[in-house]
Amino acid sequence: MERLRNCFGRLSADAVLVTHLPNVRYLCGFSGSAGLLVVEPESATFFTDSRYTFQSKYEVTGARVQISKKGLLRAAGELLRARKSLRRVAYSPAQITVAQKQALDAAVSRKVRWIDDGSAVDKLRMIKDSSEIAAIREAAAIVSKTFERTAKRLRPGDSELDVAAEIERDFKRKGAEGPSFETIVASGERTAWPHARPTRKPIAKNELVLLDHGAILRGYCSDMTRTVFVGKAPRKIRSLYRAVLEALEAGKAAARPGVKAQDVDAAARGVLRRARLDRYFTHSTGHGVGLEIHESPRLGKGDETVLAEGMVITVEPGVYIEGLGGIRIEDDIAVNSRGAEQLTTAPRHLIEL
Amino acid sequence: MERLRNCFGRLSADAVLVTHLPNVRYLCGFSGSAGLLVVEPESATFFTDSRYTFQSKYEVTGARVQISKKGLLRAAGELLRARKSLRRVAYSPAQITVAQKQALDAAVSRKVRWIDDGSAVDKLRMIKDSSEIAAIREAAAIVSKTFERTAKRLRPGDSELDVAAEIERDFKRKGAEGPSFETIVASGERTAWPHARPTRKPIAKNELVLLDHGAILRGYCSDMTRTVFVGKAPRKIRSLYRAVLEALEAGKAAARPGVKAQDVDAAARGVLRRARLDRYFTHSTGHGVGLEIHESPRLGKGDETVLAEGMVITVEPGVYIEGLGGIRIEDDIAVNSRGAEQLTTAPRHLIEL
Repeated sequence: MERLRNCFGRLSADAVLVTHLPNVRYLCGFSGSAGLLVVEPESATFFTDSRYTFQSKYEVTGARVQISKKGLLRAAGELLRARKSLRRVAYSPAQITVAQKQALDAAVSRKVRWIDDGSAVDKLRMIKDSSEIAAIREAAAIVSKTFERTAKRLRPGDSELDVAAEIERDFKRKGAEGPSFETIVASGERTAWPHARPTRKPIAKNELVLLDHGAILRGYCSDMTRTVFVGKAPRKIRSLYRAVLEALEAGKAAARPGVKAQDVDAAARGVLRRARLDRYFTHSTGHGVGLEIHESPRLGKGDETVLAEGMVITVEPGVYIEGLGGIRIEDDIAVNSRGAEQLTTAPRHLIEL
Repeated sequence: MERLRNCFGRLSADAVLVTHLPNVRYLCGFSGSAGLLVVEPESATFFTDSRYTFQSKYEVTGARVQISKKGLLRAAGELLRARKSLRRVAYSPAQITVAQKQALDAAVSRKVRWIDDGSAVDKLRMIKDSSEIAAIREAAAIVSKTFERTAKRLRPGDSELDVAAEIERDFKRKGAEGPSFETIVASGERTAWPHARPTRKPIAKNELVLLDHGAILRGYCSDMTRTVFVGKAPRKIRSLYRAVLEALEAGKAAARPGVKAQDVDAAARGVLRRARLDRYFTHSTGHGVGLEIHESPRLGKGDETVLAEGMVITVEPGVYIEGLGGIRIEDDIAVNSRGAEQLTTAPRHLIEL
């Protein structure tokens, strides 16, 4: 809870209500699906329901545990009602629904000054400590090794779902808790859908195959994309691939302490613009990765977050051309004092299967 | 969009804003991760971002597609601003965050009367049509067959993660899109955590193993739990198992059109109360299942939803005793005119491996 306590001064709040589960996990260790925290300067209370009685005893540190039978927000609201000295309470409007806020207000039933916490916990989480980076490094090694195995095993005729199933089994065999998001295996024209789900479609000769995947280890995510070609890639594909790879390298080279998140995007996007491909690059260049697969910062136009040592981000330029297909290459990197450490290490050249 | 239009009279709204992705999918077919709908009585507009340009063309029916570069809520808000005839707009306060609602209000920038939609779409979704039930039936067959294979293959020494990995690969090999939630494989004392995540712990002789798992097929979920014993189960375990199985059967027997959701809970809970085990049954008896793994109704005290033909629910009593372990048995059933159809069909007797 140390980390959050350091924020009290800046927030000028008497308490902070934490509703977002990854933030709850970050602060007190609880990994279940229902929990919230009320943090005061000298103490903290964790609320969960009776399904998590044993698990919370085992996992939660730094907060007293309260098992609630009537809804966590109501229980938290009643605590706030009872503690009349808590006048200014910070919360995250992006992490509570309108209905939840209404239930909370009803339970508090006294005047509380609600303060937007400015995503304080999300911002704390941007800077990873060495044990967090170690977990992501291992999760990144798992996906890197898994990809190398996939590239060896993949055969025309395998369905996208078959390949995804093998990948996710590999993750668990290598000790991961599971995939950090639904594994994307897209082939042929479907590679032009940046977020395609795997289907029963068999992978055919002379097709692109896009694999976007990541593992979770000790709660921390990795996220890596590679695009391969089944057969000998035509010149057009090779030229697109080269441009995307160059954009990836330019993005990674730009990432170092003191640089803004949007500048990494600009570096990668600039390469594609010079190749007249930027109109096919339809998403931002990357995002933070940690307890969540997508977290702050966002490597896109308008995000002025200054990169700092301890941030872990993805760099993932891509081009998507309807009727032809898509190519994306993505690495995870950890910003350090010298620049950035490559966490995902699988080969980046165009693999022709 | 037919289904939602039938609600307009009851809602007395000029438009309905649909923000919850499974509801968006239900109404217009879009299966991606960013989209929302504005439904008017005679037309509908679907908003997504540029990652989904191609996918939305392919998937969305019954709504015009608008690709937004500046945020979906802002785009939807601007549509509402432009259509001055839309005075009363229904939305779901439980499915939008406080921050999103603020962004929406800012974009609309004129007086709109916001009406709580009373979970209109969630309620529509409770009653499945025959194609939806067919998808859940197939997803249930996949988990049933997978369990039978798991029961044959499981050996002491396998880690919980190994077993979970095999299960999830089996799902995909059998044609499922994937698991409908993170597969639970818990062994030994950890079975007393109702929502335990699989770990590297090896499964040992003379332990309970609880498997809670489900597959997704064509977007629809199944959800089934079985608890097995590695070795010959002691008398205490056998007696607990019998009580839970009896509670399961009592719950399923109570489920038919006209009965309230809470009465199914009462039927299952009554069996455990008579066995003096109800204090160990720490969650509700079940929930609706469909496009989401947990949806309405909730089979618990206070839910007065009247069961009707076409509802698909889980019945899943359990007992969790710290230091000893937990036993849960769960089936999916579809309420029909005669009572209910069993969708999950794997053996329910205590399997001793």
